[in-house]
Amino acid sequence: MDEAKLNVTEDGLQIKAVDPSHVAMIETNLAKSAFDVFEAEPMEMGLDIDKFKTVLTVAGKTDMVELEKDDDLNRLVVNIGNLTRAMPLLDTSGMPDPKVPSLDLPASVSVAVGEIGQGIKASKTVSDHIALSTSKDSFRLVCEGDNQNSVDLSLGKEQLEKLDSSEDTTSLFSLEYFALMVNSLPADRILHINLGTDLPVKIDADLAVDDMTGAQGNVKFLLAPRIDRD
Amino acid sequence: MDEAKLNVTEDGLQIKAVDPSHVAMIETNLAKSAFDVFEAEPMEMGLDIDKFKTVLTVAGKTDMVELEKDDDLNRLVVNIGNLTRAMPLLDTSGMPDPKVPSLDLPASVSVAVGEIGQGIKASKTVSDHIALSTSKDSFRLVCEGDNQNSVDLSLGKEQLEKLDSSEDTTSLFSLEYFALMVNSLPADRILHINLGTDLPVKIDADLAVDDMTGAQGNVKFLLAPRIDRD
Amino acid sequence: MDEAKLNVTEDGLQIKAVDPSHVAMIETNLAKSAFDVFEAEPMEMGLDIDKFKTVLTVAGKTDMVELEKDDDLNRLVVNIGNLTRAMPLLDTSGMPDPKVPSLDLPASVSVAVGEIGQGIKASKTVSDHIALSTSKDSFRLVCEGDNQNSVDLSLGKEQLEKLDSSEDTTSLFSLEYFALMVNSLPADRILHINLGTDLPVKIDADLAVDDMTGAQGNVKFLLAPRIDRD
Repeated sequence: MDEAKLNVTEDGLQIKAVDPSHVAMIETNLAKSAFDVFEAEPMEMGLDIDKFKTVLTVAGKTDMVELEKDDDLNRLVVNIGNLTRAMPLLDTSGMPDPKVPSLDLPASVSVAVGEIGQGIKASKTVSDHIALSTSKDSFRLVCEGDNQNSVDLSLGKEQLEKLDSSEDTTSLFSLEYFALMVNSLPADRILHINLGTDLPVKIDADLAVDDMTGAQGNVKFLLAPRIDRD
Repeated sequence: MDEAKLNVTEDGLQIKAVDPSHVAMIETNLAKSAFDVFEAEPMEMGLDIDKFKTVLTVAGKTDMVELEKDDDLNRLVVNIGNLTRAMPLLDTSGMPDPKVPSLDLPASVSVAVGEIGQGIKASKTVSDHIALSTSKDSFRLVCEGDNQNSVDLSLGKEQLEKLDSSEDTTSLFSLEYFALMVNSLPADRILHINLGTDLPVKIDADLAVDDMTGAQGNVKFLLAPRIDRD
Repeated sequence: MDEAKLNVTEDGLQIKAVDPSHVAMIETNLAKSAFDVFEAEPMEMGLDIDKFKTVLTVAGKTDMVELEKDDDLNRLVVNIGNLTRAMPLLDTSGMPDPKVPSLDLPASVSVAVGEIGQGIKASKTVSDHIALSTSKDSFRLVCEGDNQNSVDLSLGKEQLEKLDSSEDTTSLFSLEYFALMVNSLPADRILHINLGTDLPVKIDADLAVDDMTGAQGNVKFLLAPRIDRD
């Protein structure tokens, strides 16, 4: 995802992005309460994602970061201590305003990131796509490569937070996008995964988790299936 | 070494490999007692070394790894917890079955890996070959590069576990292979090195060392000399 | 800087180097007292900087390093424990003997390396040159990139050890050379910076700092300004 639209409302901040091939969609919400100070008029900004990441890496883990929109020069101004970093904003008029569609997916699984990390890592050595499947008793990640290479991670109810699969489901996905999504979260974060057969996968997880007040944000991720199995 | 032959006997497991140019030979033995469970029919398997390493890196340091041969599909199946990783086996019929020849080498030295690590590291900046020499009182690693570059590491009896050199010896070796062998072992492991003049070097070391029961395996390494000194 | 001249006198050791385009000059002095043992005839040696660094990386942090000149073979011989590493010396007859010119620069600032590290890091994502400026009340690093990208680090008297700027000054410099100089020093080291307008910057800092006896060396750095602003 090269660019993203950042929406500021009175209640908080939302970032939405779609990858260039329209296979994956991501929506991140941060409530007003996730910020130390939040004073904003409703507005939207177009972000170059890579540049925004580069700007934020200047801040240390405990540095207070201040974001400000410079309307005159159409820039985002980031203040970190005595340092001011400005970056241009993109025109949002041509940007899609993706809405995560409401999908009726028959299976739902809740699992900690750490439970599937090893399976994803092993799969990367085998192929670039991964099948996610559910049955009444298990959630499986299966990756079939060329030759006799394969990875099969099967998690029973004891490894899952929740499993609700009235019918068996299975869909094939881009491993790269699935891995990027999962690996962006800490190992103890719970993924809420909704699945069907040859249908998109929808993943929800908490963001900005605070021991005292709970999550003050969330991320929603939608990934289209690869139908053309060979 | 691209491929290796893994021999399973009733007593344990042996891996043998020769490098493509037949300069280096390695033989690794792991006793049955080195495994938590060992149930095997005698058999042999051909391994793609790089692939086997990739498969094993999925396992954490404390994960139990289960190796199984799938005869129907001619695959090696590796189970790590809930994860199953399969990889194809190679045909062993064309693979050499190298035997470390019995050599009568006049000098023997026992030295900890850590004592020669710095010398090997320094040598890499100077040349791609290294001379190992013994005299009555010392074990030396000498590396002569172009120009006036050189490295000379001289270890006396106080740095050696053992030195037995009735005659002076010296042979020249590929630094790359020698370094790979030495650096695969921990710094406190003792190398038993047998040397002659313009003869192969033979190195033995313990593997699968357990504080309670001692070593449950060993590695034998043979490296041909480079005769054509310039 | 590819090569440098090392001058040994009765009082200590001095290394001088100029970069190939004659934009930057560096002079490092280490007093006799910075060494455990210092026995030397006055002489000069030509060093290949990269090779010298490679040789020194063999030594651990607490290893005693012994430098010796081998006049017969025109080599520098470095002894580290049982290890001897030799490297060729370069002919110094063609090497410049740069003298840091005496410059009358109107502003001087003293600041800890750590205070400007973040600003330099952020600037690298924006442009390859940086403006250093002083006013009566502040020291500023400003980096203007293409588009609306910019970095502005403004340090007031409370972040500075010293600020003495009778007139406002500003000069533009190569960010690469400035960053290399600053980043070679620990975060708590004080830089003494002398600045003018469209004039070179001169930076002094202590080296070989010892808690008991203070600094036993120093580094002087001179960097020419980039006049052709666009």
